[in-house]
Amino acid sequence: MIVVLHPNASEEKVKELHTWLESYNVKIAPINGVHKSVFGLIGDTSKIDINAIRAYDIVDTVTRVQEPYKNANRKMHPEDTVIDVNGIKIGGGNFAVIAGPCSVESEHQIIEVAQRVKAAGANFLRGGAFKPRTSPYTFQGLRAEGIELLLEAKKVTGLPIVTEIMSLSHLDLFADVDVIQVGARNMQNFELLKELGHCKKPILLKRGLANTIEELLMSAEYITAGGNTNIILCERGIRTFEPTTRNTLDISAVPILKKLSHFPVIVDPSHASGITWLVEPLSKSAIAAGCDGLIIEVHDNPKAALSDGAQSLNPDEFDGVMSSLKKYIQAENKVM
Amino acid sequence: MIVVLHPNASEEKVKELHTWLESYNVKIAPINGVHKSVFGLIGDTSKIDINAIRAYDIVDTVTRVQEPYKNANRKMHPEDTVIDVNGIKIGGGNFAVIAGPCSVESEHQIIEVAQRVKAAGANFLRGGAFKPRTSPYTFQGLRAEGIELLLEAKKVTGLPIVTEIMSLSHLDLFADVDVIQVGARNMQNFELLKELGHCKKPILLKRGLANTIEELLMSAEYITAGGNTNIILCERGIRTFEPTTRNTLDISAVPILKKLSHFPVIVDPSHASGITWLVEPLSKSAIAAGCDGLIIEVHDNPKAALSDGAQSLNPDEFDGVMSSLKKYIQAENKVM
Amino acid sequence: MIVVLHPNASEEKVKELHTWLESYNVKIAPINGVHKSVFGLIGDTSKIDINAIRAYDIVDTVTRVQEPYKNANRKMHPEDTVIDVNGIKIGGGNFAVIAGPCSVESEHQIIEVAQRVKAAGANFLRGGAFKPRTSPYTFQGLRAEGIELLLEAKKVTGLPIVTEIMSLSHLDLFADVDVIQVGARNMQNFELLKELGHCKKPILLKRGLANTIEELLMSAEYITAGGNTNIILCERGIRTFEPTTRNTLDISAVPILKKLSHFPVIVDPSHASGITWLVEPLSKSAIAAGCDGLIIEVHDNPKAALSDGAQSLNPDEFDGVMSSLKKYIQAENKVM
Amino acid sequence: MIVVLHPNASEEKVKELHTWLESYNVKIAPINGVHKSVFGLIGDTSKIDINAIRAYDIVDTVTRVQEPYKNANRKMHPEDTVIDVNGIKIGGGNFAVIAGPCSVESEHQIIEVAQRVKAAGANFLRGGAFKPRTSPYTFQGLRAEGIELLLEAKKVTGLPIVTEIMSLSHLDLFADVDVIQVGARNMQNFELLKELGHCKKPILLKRGLANTIEELLMSAEYITAGGNTNIILCERGIRTFEPTTRNTLDISAVPILKKLSHFPVIVDPSHASGITWLVEPLSKSAIAAGCDGLIIEVHDNPKAALSDGAQSLNPDEFDGVMSSLKKYIQAENKVM
Repeated sequence: MIVVLHPNASEEKVKELHTWLESYNVKIAPINGVHKSVFGLIGDTSKIDINAIRAYDIVDTVTRVQEPYKNANRKMHPEDTVIDVNGIKIGGGNFAVIAGPCSVESEHQIIEVAQRVKAAGANFLRGGAFKPRTSPYTFQGLRAEGIELLLEAKKVTGLPIVTEIMSLSHLDLFADVDVIQVGARNMQNFELLKELGHCKKPILLKRGLANTIEELLMSAEYITAGGNTNIILCERGIRTFEPTTRNTLDISAVPILKKLSHFPVIVDPSHASGITWLVEPLSKSAIAAGCDGLIIEVHDNPKAALSDGAQSLNPDEFDGVMSSLKKYIQAENKVM
Repeated sequence: MIVVLHPNASEEKVKELHTWLESYNVKIAPINGVHKSVFGLIGDTSKIDINAIRAYDIVDTVTRVQEPYKNANRKMHPEDTVIDVNGIKIGGGNFAVIAGPCSVESEHQIIEVAQRVKAAGANFLRGGAFKPRTSPYTFQGLRAEGIELLLEAKKVTGLPIVTEIMSLSHLDLFADVDVIQVGARNMQNFELLKELGHCKKPILLKRGLANTIEELLMSAEYITAGGNTNIILCERGIRTFEPTTRNTLDISAVPILKKLSHFPVIVDPSHASGITWLVEPLSKSAIAAGCDGLIIEVHDNPKAALSDGAQSLNPDEFDGVMSSLKKYIQAENKVM
Repeated sequence: MIVVLHPNASEEKVKELHTWLESYNVKIAPINGVHKSVFGLIGDTSKIDINAIRAYDIVDTVTRVQEPYKNANRKMHPEDTVIDVNGIKIGGGNFAVIAGPCSVESEHQIIEVAQRVKAAGANFLRGGAFKPRTSPYTFQGLRAEGIELLLEAKKVTGLPIVTEIMSLSHLDLFADVDVIQVGARNMQNFELLKELGHCKKPILLKRGLANTIEELLMSAEYITAGGNTNIILCERGIRTFEPTTRNTLDISAVPILKKLSHFPVIVDPSHASGITWLVEPLSKSAIAAGCDGLIIEVHDNPKAALSDGAQSLNPDEFDGVMSSLKKYIQAENKVM
Repeated sequence: MIVVLHPNASEEKVKELHTWLESYNVKIAPINGVHKSVFGLIGDTSKIDINAIRAYDIVDTVTRVQEPYKNANRKMHPEDTVIDVNGIKIGGGNFAVIAGPCSVESEHQIIEVAQRVKAAGANFLRGGAFKPRTSPYTFQGLRAEGIELLLEAKKVTGLPIVTEIMSLSHLDLFADVDVIQVGARNMQNFELLKELGHCKKPILLKRGLANTIEELLMSAEYITAGGNTNIILCERGIRTFEPTTRNTLDISAVPILKKLSHFPVIVDPSHASGITWLVEPLSKSAIAAGCDGLIIEVHDNPKAALSDGAQSLNPDEFDGVMSSLKKYIQAENKVM
């Protein structure tokens, strides 16, 4: 950590800051410049709140030079983390496709979709039981019953299931779920993240609409802090001024997350764009950028979908997308 | 709601859409243009998911012409909502100042700060017991004990207390809290909002970092849907590309929220800027824009603060800010 | 265009608006709803300023249903525009790579780089003669001399040259330049665009940092309005809150621009990211998203570059990138 | 400037960087930490391109600790710059209101508006002669004739005139203009800025839609580099994700610009919001934040305006706004 002081800081105030910093067990190496004085802090600075240093009025700027995350950091864990769900793997050269409807709506619907996406080559089934909806007046999900139906579809097809948790208080209902998804709106629901750190299940952690790459990794760090390192990171678009797409897919986040962290990285082209016909080009693009998997919305009848119809493929369209992706997965030397 | 169709939509597909729309009990009034066909939907469209209409491939654009919120809408409730906490009022010409430390740290600290902010003219005490922190390695708040200490400070000073809830599972601990704060990161924690709709306490609802004004009002709508209309809206800065400030205070949101909704609107200049010396000019600015109150961070010793020191005023600075605000509150014909 | 009126608009005011709208030679088809009145405008609305309608206080919202651009619109011109520069083509299945240094610095440098990028497979040479620099104290380009040196490099290698114009007053100096680049900061320099509309040369038009896809197409429309339809569109990253990359590459813009418009679309991974090692994954990603070419910064000695060293590949790195791109260009059935 | 190296940088590479940095006549003071090595650069670093340092692959991060602008920096020039136009002053406690139509449309219109805004208390007349319009099919301004009409209105009312330049090639037409405006889209038209640095007229420099506060000050620096220090800075809203307003007024930029720089700072509530009824609350808010003036659009008949009607006040509304602002200007101890 580098601390730059105001040019005219009094000796007394500098001493006060010095003493306080030393209480964190870091060594302080000064540089004396012409206009400014600068401290370098040497040692483990992860416990120091950067804003606490800024509270000293003699401080001009503070810059972190080490990443604030440890367990999530590839420097501490150079090999790829591979998530293994009943033998189906994500990461380390293994490519996964998670597909299914935005919301679970009925037994018929979820089984029909599960069979179709499996036939097309998907290896996980997604489906929302608890649904975060902007309006309290629209469909809120089948909740506990939705999870039952997903487990039914798993029994029929063998596909492991991925579904979103919206509240700690529902955790017991997720006992048989294979991968627990934390949605974009809950990426910084820290109480939820802490609790998920104590379970052993893989967590699919989506980036928030306005969260930086570093904040996503800090949220992963929260989960690891409890002991759970089964984490899949997901880029799903960020909010910008561009109105054509629902969000702006930050494709650069894929290679950056792969470099900074050892966790597998997947992309959600459905939520990133909100537009059906963009799912194919964005999926190809994400594979070429180095992602380890995709999560795609597929509905047996998008027009009748109770949520997110505009961005859901129908099963025939999904067949087309899957067959067009194959050569890109191969080009990246990944297996599925 | 206005639905614009693609120019070459087949008659059959148009009929299919027609039938589906009618299932929502709305009347459909067509316009026939040269290049496009357009439907106007007449009636209560709040239950129709706009994305479901977009899922029809013959649909080009859909525009809502009525706000999707009802209870939060000033059109339905033209008078200002006034929140009354033990006789202290916010809204309807009543101005409130909520002040206190980012985190409750000790009995001494919270009582000292409470006494000082009261003396300076604040009428509510804030303090974080549960703290959302980006890093799992920094101070997470005193939690239940923090609430105890706030109640202690209330006993000493008489100031009603405002503190943030981070999880539904902690709700019982908030039984004696006067105003429950929902933080920016939980603005779309819909399960939490629903539950808060069933309690009677005033809710201070902060705008999320990347949430629109309409989304803030939809989150307020969630709370009202359960029956609780004691809501205070809070603008606290949005995330933009500008790096000088922690967030960008969206000052226009103040008059817009006042126009669209009947709830009181307060501003948080401390989180909006993250910089102590900006608190005064931003507070004056917010009052002049028409807000009903302010929430300001004050710490007895900002340099030793366990969180957010860089944006906390010390009690002497807060005295200065409060006395400079008086003429602006008067200029707006508000009472405190 | 759909105009929604306030529910209580007086008959007199509605009539006034009617009369004014009819002065634009459009037909007005009304819908009468329960809460609102709505007009549909039928005919050529491109001359109506949408803000002028909003100036009527009885108007609630106005929505355009036809794109405001015509010449740039694929609906008016379904076939791909192919740009042909001395037999080298971009668009319509032809893939181009434009490579070279940020700034032309010396005869030795530009010829060395030109030879190396040609050997690696690039088919255009780029190089800045006039340089838009944030600081007046850093290198501003060799200006007229820079163009001379580019022409020298063209003579030696045969590569057509692409260079940026920063002011109308320099236009004469561009007489022998093959492709004139309009940089991101000049995307809405409308006087410049108008003048470029009167020349016959291909224009490489870069998207502005904060400009929407529609605004980019409107700037292309400005050029076409003067008669020049030799336009290459370029996505080069937009400004967002994410600090890791210099800009955020909006990869979705590639398929969207290809759908809305008939012009070739290229991507600039160097400026989009500002980071050398991201150029390869972003280039692959852009090809998979459907772009027609790339523009990449290559410098013979990036560390000594007078501008943008941090995002320039050296010639050996560029060799590596080019050979890794081949299979992706083939996968998209494009030729180079 | 602080340069942080990668932990395993070879001695040879560190030496190479050392030698190169010394070529800029700065002293290099090293700190040796446990994980990283750090250099502090001491001396005048304004000529060093920060990206050139990043081009060294052993460099991890580079942070500037001195502002890159000098002439615009309050540290170099502690007193407020006061702009004096024929005795009418802006800055240093002098408050100015610049008002008038978006576009000059006719002699009758501009004289009518000039007389009305003067009567209401404005001290400058604005009016667009050259108009930057997104669409080539909408009104582009009266151009040279527009400037003639502004001068006519000046003759009648005595108000000095402010109008926008869109191209260097028009500079001769601005000989009798009192204040030359550089619009948001030209804030980084560096060739234009350089040329304006050679004239003596006051320049009203608007912040670009996606430009940071530092970039605005660097553009001011460009003008000063040519010798012209008569600069008025203008905050006019930045582009964000919020759709309710045309732009988001960055109110914090006002006190920050006043602190970092000595130039007067004005606010444009009309362009910032794009909504007539927001002009009054945003104007009050801007005054309370410490601005030195306002620029407001006023049209004698907004509904018939050839541009920006939706954000223009009519003269009666402007009377109302002006009288409501007086107590805020007084509260800030400014004179008009």
